[in-house]
Amino acid sequence: MDPSTKSKVTYQPATSPKKSRLHSWLIGRPLPTADAEQQAIGKRIGLAVFSSDALSSTAYATQEILVILVAAGTAALSFAFPISITIVALLAIVTISYQQTIHAYPSGGGAYIVSRDNLGQFASQVAGASLLSDYILTVSVSVSAGLAQVVSAFPALINYRVYIAVAVVMLIMLINLRGVKESGFVFAIPTYFFLAMLTLTVVVGLVRNISGNLPGLIDPPPIIDMGTTQAVTLFLLLHAFSSGTTALTGVEAISNGIPAFKEPRSRNAGQTLVWMSVILGSLFLSITFLSGAIGAVPSEFETVISQIARTVFSGRGILYLSVIGATTLILFMAANTAFADFPRLSALQASDKFLPRQLTYRGSRLVYSWGIVTLSMIAALIIILFQANVTSLIPLYAIGVFLSFTLSQAGMAHRWLKIGMLGPEDEIQEQGSVLSYDPNWRWKMIINGFGAMCTAVVVIIFATTKFQDGAWLVLILIPLLVSMFYAIHRHYIRLADDLSLTDFVPPPVLKHQRTIVPISDVHKGTLTALRYARSLSDDVTAVFIAIDDAQTKRIQDRWEKWTEGVPLIVIDSPFRELMHPLVDYIDIQAAKNEPGDIITVVVPEFVPSHWWHNFLHNQHATWLHFALRHIPGVVVVNVPYQVE
Amino acid sequence: MDPSTKSKVTYQPATSPKKSRLHSWLIGRPLPTADAEQQAIGKRIGLAVFSSDALSSTAYATQEILVILVAAGTAALSFAFPISITIVALLAIVTISYQQTIHAYPSGGGAYIVSRDNLGQFASQVAGASLLSDYILTVSVSVSAGLAQVVSAFPALINYRVYIAVAVVMLIMLINLRGVKESGFVFAIPTYFFLAMLTLTVVVGLVRNISGNLPGLIDPPPIIDMGTTQAVTLFLLLHAFSSGTTALTGVEAISNGIPAFKEPRSRNAGQTLVWMSVILGSLFLSITFLSGAIGAVPSEFETVISQIARTVFSGRGILYLSVIGATTLILFMAANTAFADFPRLSALQASDKFLPRQLTYRGSRLVYSWGIVTLSMIAALIIILFQANVTSLIPLYAIGVFLSFTLSQAGMAHRWLKIGMLGPEDEIQEQGSVLSYDPNWRWKMIINGFGAMCTAVVVIIFATTKFQDGAWLVLILIPLLVSMFYAIHRHYIRLADDLSLTDFVPPPVLKHQRTIVPISDVHKGTLTALRYARSLSDDVTAVFIAIDDAQTKRIQDRWEKWTEGVPLIVIDSPFRELMHPLVDYIDIQAAKNEPGDIITVVVPEFVPSHWWHNFLHNQHATWLHFALRHIPGVVVVNVPYQVE
Repeated sequence: MDPSTKSKVTYQPATSPKKSRLHSWLIGRPLPTADAEQQAIGKRIGLAVFSSDALSSTAYATQEILVILVAAGTAALSFAFPISITIVALLAIVTISYQQTIHAYPSGGGAYIVSRDNLGQFASQVAGASLLSDYILTVSVSVSAGLAQVVSAFPALINYRVYIAVAVVMLIMLINLRGVKESGFVFAIPTYFFLAMLTLTVVVGLVRNISGNLPGLIDPPPIIDMGTTQAVTLFLLLHAFSSGTTALTGVEAISNGIPAFKEPRSRNAGQTLVWMSVILGSLFLSITFLSGAIGAVPSEFETVISQIARTVFSGRGILYLSVIGATTLILFMAANTAFADFPRLSALQASDKFLPRQLTYRGSRLVYSWGIVTLSMIAALIIILFQANVTSLIPLYAIGVFLSFTLSQAGMAHRWLKIGMLGPEDEIQEQGSVLSYDPNWRWKMIINGFGAMCTAVVVIIFATTKFQDGAWLVLILIPLLVSMFYAIHRHYIRLADDLSLTDFVPPPVLKHQRTIVPISDVHKGTLTALRYARSLSDDVTAVFIAIDDAQTKRIQDRWEKWTEGVPLIVIDSPFRELMHPLVDYIDIQAAKNEPGDIITVVVPEFVPSHWWHNFLHNQHATWLHFALRHIPGVVVVNVPYQVE
Repeated sequence: MDPSTKSKVTYQPATSPKKSRLHSWLIGRPLPTADAEQQAIGKRIGLAVFSSDALSSTAYATQEILVILVAAGTAALSFAFPISITIVALLAIVTISYQQTIHAYPSGGGAYIVSRDNLGQFASQVAGASLLSDYILTVSVSVSAGLAQVVSAFPALINYRVYIAVAVVMLIMLINLRGVKESGFVFAIPTYFFLAMLTLTVVVGLVRNISGNLPGLIDPPPIIDMGTTQAVTLFLLLHAFSSGTTALTGVEAISNGIPAFKEPRSRNAGQTLVWMSVILGSLFLSITFLSGAIGAVPSEFETVISQIARTVFSGRGILYLSVIGATTLILFMAANTAFADFPRLSALQASDKFLPRQLTYRGSRLVYSWGIVTLSMIAALIIILFQANVTSLIPLYAIGVFLSFTLSQAGMAHRWLKIGMLGPEDEIQEQGSVLSYDPNWRWKMIINGFGAMCTAVVVIIFATTKFQDGAWLVLILIPLLVSMFYAIHRHYIRLADDLSLTDFVPPPVLKHQRTIVPISDVHKGTLTALRYARSLSDDVTAVFIAIDDAQTKRIQDRWEKWTEGVPLIVIDSPFRELMHPLVDYIDIQAAKNEPGDIITVVVPEFVPSHWWHNFLHNQHATWLHFALRHIPGVVVVNVPYQVE
């Protein structure tokens, strides 16, 4: 098989890629592309993977309502239950609305796709920005809330919570870099454990309450200080309502994740959504009710869940610890939900050319490694900046979710309108779904339209009441992200134009090869580079940057002795700069190029045998490469000299 | 001036280096090498620059003694004054001993040079490791102690102290990147302000004490919690003594900094040292005495200086605030002392080939920029890790200083012994100094030997009493650093051997040029690279890594259309790896090389017009460069393609 005789040759590599032992142990052995289809999950695992975000918000939603209400005194805490009922009603509306989406988009109906198909590119980018920022916050909030549970049980850990939270994010990252099937398995048991423990707590609590022997909270923790006492105003109630709507975060996860389900995807995903909403609504209401019944208080030192559990189970026994453990774990799983969705959505946006194309790359375990790593890094940074404090993070959270809810449902409403305009026999093939006439289109449009309206109102309430607590940051961030997406998009589109061969005329043949060899000394490395330069061309010039007179003299003498008359240009550098004078010189030479001329700069480069030895050298070869590549008509050759 | 006609050509650049406006504003305009000698300082500025470290330790040394003593109850605090007297006696011994060093080493007698000349390479590396780690800690401790003063006056800032401390380190870094003369001027006024304010406080305090109207401390801050109450044991007293010896840190700064003084250097430096020690000793004793007189207590919330100042001046008025301000500033200047010494010492070690040679490089303002930046980064990291808590940092601090004191004085003692062995007319020329007979050699040897013995005892006391508080970390770190220094040294020595032209035989002429062009697509960029490859050789092969079948087919078709029969090798990559299959292929080809053969890999490279566009591409060209440079007989050419 001589490559010069035919123009296409296929060369089959024998082995799977070399990976370090550490890499294999942490991430698992590489999976071939052919394995991709097998990574799909059933309803039970699906509930565990995609519902943990929504379910886990019961761990902090009640508490965050109380945090706001307590500003009007402990008596105001009794408003928490009616507020919760409103939120559960909102949950019901959103669930019904999303059912329609899941069935209309069997191949994945996240807000990004639905708004792209029905509202256009701009709306989809807004949805993308909202969702991506909210996925990041899901990780930060959930892991921080998990640590708050741990600290409730083990107060001694309070000063280490930031470190532990970052470690947890890194652990979840590793699990996800191994692939979703394994993480589904890892996470199924704890999710059901959480459901069992919380159901037990709620049932025992309600039974004791009805039978009249549920005691009040003993030894309450210090109440969080929210400044001066306010009156109960509509603003305060809406503010508390906004905080409580965090209970709904994660409801959209299933609609984004439909492609991960086994067939029939829509049916499985839809049933999982209903189950999730029913469980979420009942848990949230029960917890809020019990918090009122025992007189739980919002505190930085103990969560409401912890207060309820130790009251219901009369102390910090094995049942109490199981509830805290289960709640902590479900919160960590919630973070994991974002690890399923963020990489998927960012890959989708990247394939639409709105995000860097690296995000579409599936790593050795068939997952979107870049997305997973990006998510982990930003989430960990936010945890550090906000010191793992849930109450500080909450004002940033949920606004993106509700914005994407609104866009998604508005998109669906518009879709039903389009369907209504069809004749009974018409059909339109769209990117992600088929539009065919549906006699119930009016009714369905009303459902989605009402959903959109409700969630839009929540966005406005949220932005108003939480503006100065931090929501302004999100209101700045989302437009910034959208402009960034468009900047990226323009770059890729222009690049494709620029590289296109459509009116390509082959350029003239290269005429003249001049070579320049920058040297810092005369030794085996530079002589090797010089030898290579002479094999390219007879027109070779060496260049030396002079900083020290004595050294320059020595170099010039040695040059004459070893190089048989190759000219050496010495450039004085009174300011001890090495790169600028050299780049300037080459720039001036390149300006003299005639069309078709090219200057080849041959750079001698040390290659030390140990990686850390690189820190002992100046890396001028690398810097020069980056500096020279902007000069047209100049090509850089690195001639490595392997030492030792 | 045609470069091909003569072998040496000097090319004179016209302009000073281009620097961004931000760079010029922050760092100042570049200084030419010829300006180097002007940056020398007089005694008054010298006292300000080199004494601030030592003087500022009065701000925390008393307090750290109290922190240890309070573990035996507040009654034990009365031991602080006798302990201080012992420490001042130690200061006197060290000062007398160092006087001899300064006069023996007019061109700089730091522990590194003295031990290198008199005890050999290994001792000097131990001294270097001790000093470098202590300089870093000087920055961390001093800035943290400065913030403790600020927090005493403004308790609301307590939660921001880490951020402010890091900002202060960055500010001092910038000032030092501008050059030592400017920093000397900037720092002279505050040092004298500190001396004035502290002298005033001490004098007023002592006068009020003698006249019997100095009140006790009103409203004392909460005492730091040091666990269960202990008895007053010898161990506890030695422990407190160790903490107090931090007062001596910085005494060696002048001996390291002699070259920065104006001529006569030794005389000026010696006088400055005596002045510094007298001031330091009196201030330290007075502060400790006053702390006992008013009943000051060690606290995390208010420093002892603050307690004394508000008692002496009867409240938090303008005088109190001036004392706190002056103390804060002198502590920040103390950090600045390390910025004078760390870069100087690390450059010295680097020129001895024990540290990366970049550290010898003088930046645009003639200062050792790499050393300054390295110091700042590590010190800031330590501040973050220890949350700017002085009491946590103290156990790590001072052990390195006393180790270097011991080595330096032992070296001097050995030097006097050598001098004693000379005849009255003999003279020995050494690297940094001249050895000539001195009739008083016995007496001088006893002085330095006694100094070495005393400081060695302090090292042992320190290591024993503070071992479990954190001194163990330093006892591990110093040997690690010394081994690192030797590993670096071995690399540079071997590299010089390897590159030496001593028995160099010019290799055979390059015979055969094969070129390989890796491509990811067929577009203008790849065709440009192909054109360059064809200008080098007739033996050109393109390589494509196949991940997706449809894409591969498309590429193959386009290749055939545009390249007139250049062979294209397609390598299947079932694990979606791009680099490994390519590197493996080139490795196999290179193994077929005969002596004198070389393979040139021509890599097409996008060069986007905006730096941030780089994040939107895979940077395969850069990765390939790093991967291929380890294969002998392979040279990499990057052919840039400038887009837009």
